[in-house]
Amino acid sequence: MGLSERIDNAVMQAVATGQGGVAPRQLAEALRYATTPGGARIRPTILTSVAMACGDDRPQITDAAAAALELIHCASLVHDDLPCFDDAETRRGKPSVHRAYGQPLAVLAGDSLIVLAFEVLARVAHLDAGRSARLVLTLAQRTGMPNGICAGQGWESEPQVDLRAYHRSKTGALFVAATQMGAIAAGQEPDDWEELGARIGEAFQVADDLRDALYDSDTLGKPAGQDDLHRRPNAVSELGVEGAIKRLTDILSGAIASIPSCPGEAALAQMVRMQAERLIPVITPVAK
Amino acid sequence: MGLSERIDNAVMQAVATGQGGVAPRQLAEALRYATTPGGARIRPTILTSVAMACGDDRPQITDAAAAALELIHCASLVHDDLPCFDDAETRRGKPSVHRAYGQPLAVLAGDSLIVLAFEVLARVAHLDAGRSARLVLTLAQRTGMPNGICAGQGWESEPQVDLRAYHRSKTGALFVAATQMGAIAAGQEPDDWEELGARIGEAFQVADDLRDALYDSDTLGKPAGQDDLHRRPNAVSELGVEGAIKRLTDILSGAIASIPSCPGEAALAQMVRMQAERLIPVITPVAK
Repeated sequence: MGLSERIDNAVMQAVATGQGGVAPRQLAEALRYATTPGGARIRPTILTSVAMACGDDRPQITDAAAAALELIHCASLVHDDLPCFDDAETRRGKPSVHRAYGQPLAVLAGDSLIVLAFEVLARVAHLDAGRSARLVLTLAQRTGMPNGICAGQGWESEPQVDLRAYHRSKTGALFVAATQMGAIAAGQEPDDWEELGARIGEAFQVADDLRDALYDSDTLGKPAGQDDLHRRPNAVSELGVEGAIKRLTDILSGAIASIPSCPGEAALAQMVRMQAERLIPVITPVAK
Repeated sequence: MGLSERIDNAVMQAVATGQGGVAPRQLAEALRYATTPGGARIRPTILTSVAMACGDDRPQITDAAAAALELIHCASLVHDDLPCFDDAETRRGKPSVHRAYGQPLAVLAGDSLIVLAFEVLARVAHLDAGRSARLVLTLAQRTGMPNGICAGQGWESEPQVDLRAYHRSKTGALFVAATQMGAIAAGQEPDDWEELGARIGEAFQVADDLRDALYDSDTLGKPAGQDDLHRRPNAVSELGVEGAIKRLTDILSGAIASIPSCPGEAALAQMVRMQAERLIPVITPVAK
């Protein structure tokens, strides 16, 4: 089983946990709709790659962690797409959840996915209660207030934005969760893994800024030009297109250099390089 | 320190966890606004009473559990008040969160409170990782899909409602969480405590139906007549006012009878009786 299949299976198994028995049909469907087809599943891919680099001695815990992180990411997309935020008509090339199911079910689908993420982590506590609890704590800290993606979105309502805190929480938080939860799932200390996650997060922020500024909605599969429209801070407006691309490659080199010493260090560096190649060629031709 | 002060302290300490450091100011404020002044704090009161009846040997875990449960309840109020659900202007006698802070921050405040609930439970794992994990699991199951309050709200979007599942999840779920989490916090098995929670939940559903049907918005501190307006099932339309009051007292007697044998059984029965008295006299004069 390849990595991508492993992660998809873990996510689908987690979603099924939220759908069993006598459940309201449309909300159950909305949970599946919001999580399939997967996007690149980048966060759980990083998480699982880190866990494998650390030995992956409890693969069921790794799978739970990967699924939980992806559920939180999907929940954030559902809520961010709501009319009171981005009012996005489309997501991943199909109608956004509130367009397909209405706003009430979109709010509830997001809420349910958040809760399900923590349930999935609690369900592997019989394998190692300590790891389960550390995963819950790390995921919560990177999701909620004051440092998680909720905080990141909250900064957009502030008249005065702390840009460093904004970027760190809005985009960086779930990448730090990815590397740290991968380490925890494999029984390692998470502290050394923060920098790798933070740098990957910065790289994705810059790549996302480039895409938002350069692409149209059809290519993105979601509305383009949102940063300009909502006057959000953006690396392209700050550095120009060439400058932003230079910055992206620098950050990715730094990410690879920051990988802590571990049994699977070389393979992990290779994974980060692959992710980097996915980001950069997509942007370069458009920028020229 | 009385029970009510103990619970308020636990909730405030939990909310402070979500507000530290460099955080977006308004969202941080909204978390406090959504959780103070407390309503009756009935769910954490039941939880703590059950824990005390079971010996309360780890009071910090009990406090975390009580706070987590109340945060979930407050989050559900914030989201249920949104324009796409009840569109409530007021809650607990002051403007609802979205009226005070706008819809984006209301969505985010609800999300953040849900996440914070699980964080609070993970933070006591150093005292007993097993109890922490069981609390996370129980709270998640009673909050999300397919059996928690999210499912309960989800039923309201269905053309065909399973009434039993609807009531059990919409109102009953967090009362079952209260009794079971109280038992878990004190190191006891939760299964025997499900019936007490379920019966208290039924009682509150009937009492809520009576208030919704009989009171005006000023008295309720939130919009009245919502069940009629949204054509939600209601015990008063089913049984009449007198019938609903009769049913309420029967359920509460059953609740007291269902209390499992435990060191603090008598005191707990007394607490349930007190809660019952709070419900019934409020309704009786109006019904006559």
